[in-house]
Amino acid sequence: MFKKILIANRGEIALRVIRTCKEMGIKTVAVYSKADADSLHVRFADEAVCIGPAPSSESYLKIPNIISAAEITNADAIHPGYGFLSENSKFSKICEEHDIKFIGASAEMIEKMGDKATAKATMKEAGVPCVPGSEGILEDYDECLKVAKGMGFPVMLKATAGGGGKGMRAVWAVEDLEDAWNSARQEAGAAFGNDGMYMEKLIEEPRHIEIQIVGDSRGKACHLSERDCSVQRRHQKLTEETPSPFMTDDLREKMGNAAVKAAEFIKYEGAGTVEFLVDKHRNFYFMEMNTRIQVEHPITEQVIDYDLIREQILVAAGVPISGKNYFPKLHSIECRINAEDPYKGFRPSPGMITNLHAPGGHGVRIDTHVYSGYAIPPNYDSMIAKLITTAQTREEAINKMKRALDEFIIEGIQTTIPFHRQLMDDPAYISGNYTTKFMEDFVMEEKYADHD
Amino acid sequence: MFKKILIANRGEIALRVIRTCKEMGIKTVAVYSKADADSLHVRFADEAVCIGPAPSSESYLKIPNIISAAEITNADAIHPGYGFLSENSKFSKICEEHDIKFIGASAEMIEKMGDKATAKATMKEAGVPCVPGSEGILEDYDECLKVAKGMGFPVMLKATAGGGGKGMRAVWAVEDLEDAWNSARQEAGAAFGNDGMYMEKLIEEPRHIEIQIVGDSRGKACHLSERDCSVQRRHQKLTEETPSPFMTDDLREKMGNAAVKAAEFIKYEGAGTVEFLVDKHRNFYFMEMNTRIQVEHPITEQVIDYDLIREQILVAAGVPISGKNYFPKLHSIECRINAEDPYKGFRPSPGMITNLHAPGGHGVRIDTHVYSGYAIPPNYDSMIAKLITTAQTREEAINKMKRALDEFIIEGIQTTIPFHRQLMDDPAYISGNYTTKFMEDFVMEEKYADHD
Repeated sequence: MFKKILIANRGEIALRVIRTCKEMGIKTVAVYSKADADSLHVRFADEAVCIGPAPSSESYLKIPNIISAAEITNADAIHPGYGFLSENSKFSKICEEHDIKFIGASAEMIEKMGDKATAKATMKEAGVPCVPGSEGILEDYDECLKVAKGMGFPVMLKATAGGGGKGMRAVWAVEDLEDAWNSARQEAGAAFGNDGMYMEKLIEEPRHIEIQIVGDSRGKACHLSERDCSVQRRHQKLTEETPSPFMTDDLREKMGNAAVKAAEFIKYEGAGTVEFLVDKHRNFYFMEMNTRIQVEHPITEQVIDYDLIREQILVAAGVPISGKNYFPKLHSIECRINAEDPYKGFRPSPGMITNLHAPGGHGVRIDTHVYSGYAIPPNYDSMIAKLITTAQTREEAINKMKRALDEFIIEGIQTTIPFHRQLMDDPAYISGNYTTKFMEDFVMEEKYADHD
Repeated sequence: MFKKILIANRGEIALRVIRTCKEMGIKTVAVYSKADADSLHVRFADEAVCIGPAPSSESYLKIPNIISAAEITNADAIHPGYGFLSENSKFSKICEEHDIKFIGASAEMIEKMGDKATAKATMKEAGVPCVPGSEGILEDYDECLKVAKGMGFPVMLKATAGGGGKGMRAVWAVEDLEDAWNSARQEAGAAFGNDGMYMEKLIEEPRHIEIQIVGDSRGKACHLSERDCSVQRRHQKLTEETPSPFMTDDLREKMGNAAVKAAEFIKYEGAGTVEFLVDKHRNFYFMEMNTRIQVEHPITEQVIDYDLIREQILVAAGVPISGKNYFPKLHSIECRINAEDPYKGFRPSPGMITNLHAPGGHGVRIDTHVYSGYAIPPNYDSMIAKLITTAQTREEAINKMKRALDEFIIEGIQTTIPFHRQLMDDPAYISGNYTTKFMEDFVMEEKYADHD
């Protein structure tokens, strides 16, 4: 087992990794930028090394500084957390060259899954369903018709040079296809000087549902069921839950098996997430694979009594997995508490936290690196805490989240607490019948503002 | 279901009950003494009524004030928490007379279990093993010998007027009995002017292991397995765990069945705890029954995914239990964080908390009513927080407790955090091989003092 792990990250995930290392009896090294000197990950690590000034390019992304810190402190492994260098194949390779175990995917794996086209081709080869589409540009209307009939309606016609919705048409029936083809081509030609068109299956009422997997060095993988991350704003996840209210036992088995097949096909080693789009008919399509721990991993931990960071470390040390899959026994919801003002378009609200009181009690977990008196630097991601509630049922988990949000006191800055509080009262959210489009119509109501 | 519950208590248990009520959609009324105006239970309840000055006799124990508060606010039930009026048969009866549901045991039940002699006689009748002993005073040495032979050695001779160990003899073999009888009688006569002696079975290497039970209005009961509370100082529990490291499946079944038998024999309604002494041979003996929620109830909740306060409320509302028993799937430990100085004989250390930062993350639960800036009044129990860790194994739960204690920052007062930190490193504690005598030899070491 590793003797000392350097955590090449900051914030709550750095603290998260340090906690598990401590519990496993592994020494820890924190690295930090000058802006993060007062962060808890620096305080709770056994050693801490300053690796540069605030801009990430000068510190958390600066590979030579991080490798030096690992060498100075004799760390025998590096945990990259999420973001920053966690999916940087060069970093993974350099660690390997320096005989430092990278607790994440190999350079080859990162490259394979990092490029969307390569990833999709690989998944097709593995037999994992991908969003059906034309092979590149459609030659003429005849090909367009043939492809559309082949994959079935509805379809989406897209301009190869497109953007901003121009040259894009959703087509729901064969009799509308020719008109759509002609008008979209015309529009694309006028807008981009290029009327090349391709086609994809239109995903109706899409949900973002991902499957957590773990693979070991023998090439064996298992899945740990799903997380529903459909509540997103500009592709940023806001809240996640497991099980997905849209899930069935049958769909879970199919998606879980597909994710395991994908992982075993590429001999994936470590913790990873296979993200799918699921349509209203419960067809699912590979979107991408993240070769790292996800922000929302705690909800999986809560419903299956599992420490995913521990598992990452064990697998990296060569310990084989049992191979059995894990299924949710409870319901868990995560709300990402961001230093943002939900009443002003979620604009960042860094600054000094003058007072902080976190909720507690039965079924409440908080992962945070901030505290009363902590100044949130303006340089980084605005997430300051993850509030997770877990209960026997979804209804109970929502009710628990409401009372936990009501107890959560953060003063001195604006946060997304009122947003989550309103969300937990939203009939569409409560019904569980929401898609990735959910946030498009969401309006913050004043009654959910903090009252001091 | 109840519409509004008044919580006739203070501190963390008042907050604990309020949280579950909120999650169940039930309105809450806090009552508070003038010394507790700034307590969180006052802040988080829907309504709050001041019921008098600081001394408990003037507020938390003052039945007319509490009944008035319930009537003014139209509360249809009262939750008494633990301590104060929770096992007061008069209060239970008065609630009933005022058509307010008492979420606890009936007056009759409290009386039956509150008097030790009556409780023991009832349990004997129910067939629950009690500590064997003579029927009252031993007439002469012949009777002494007969009783000792009947129950088997070792035995404990005790002076009926005794105290402070005077007139008390542990006897391990029949050949020592006559000498012990004579010398103990002499000693008792000299010390108390009364040489009456009685005899009890000597419990070798006793452990305090209790069984959580829940009974419903149909007279049906179930058990929720055990808690080991052997780490005590002057009969005050300091830390508890479940499962007990001393437990076997066979013993759990026997003790669980005995507890259920006891509860069903007396048609017990509500949550209760049957406390047993267990000797080194795994014989167990009824000690007493607590007809209320226990301080240490969260560890049971953690290992069986159960909300015991919710269950109390449901049962009080007449909802029947399923009847199945619950068995621990995980390991959970609770450390009671008291405002006491463990380096100075655990003497109380009330005062202002100038800084508080609670640990969090995977497997960590905190139940507390205090916060940064809160002044602990000197009038009440010194417990200010319960820190609970839960993991797959006992070893992992201990390691998690260590790192959580290391993260827990409470400034301005002395706390028992350093005691618990040392305990988690103690070889006897780690071995699991501890008895109720454990604390007699425990010495606090300066190295575990907080370093600021």
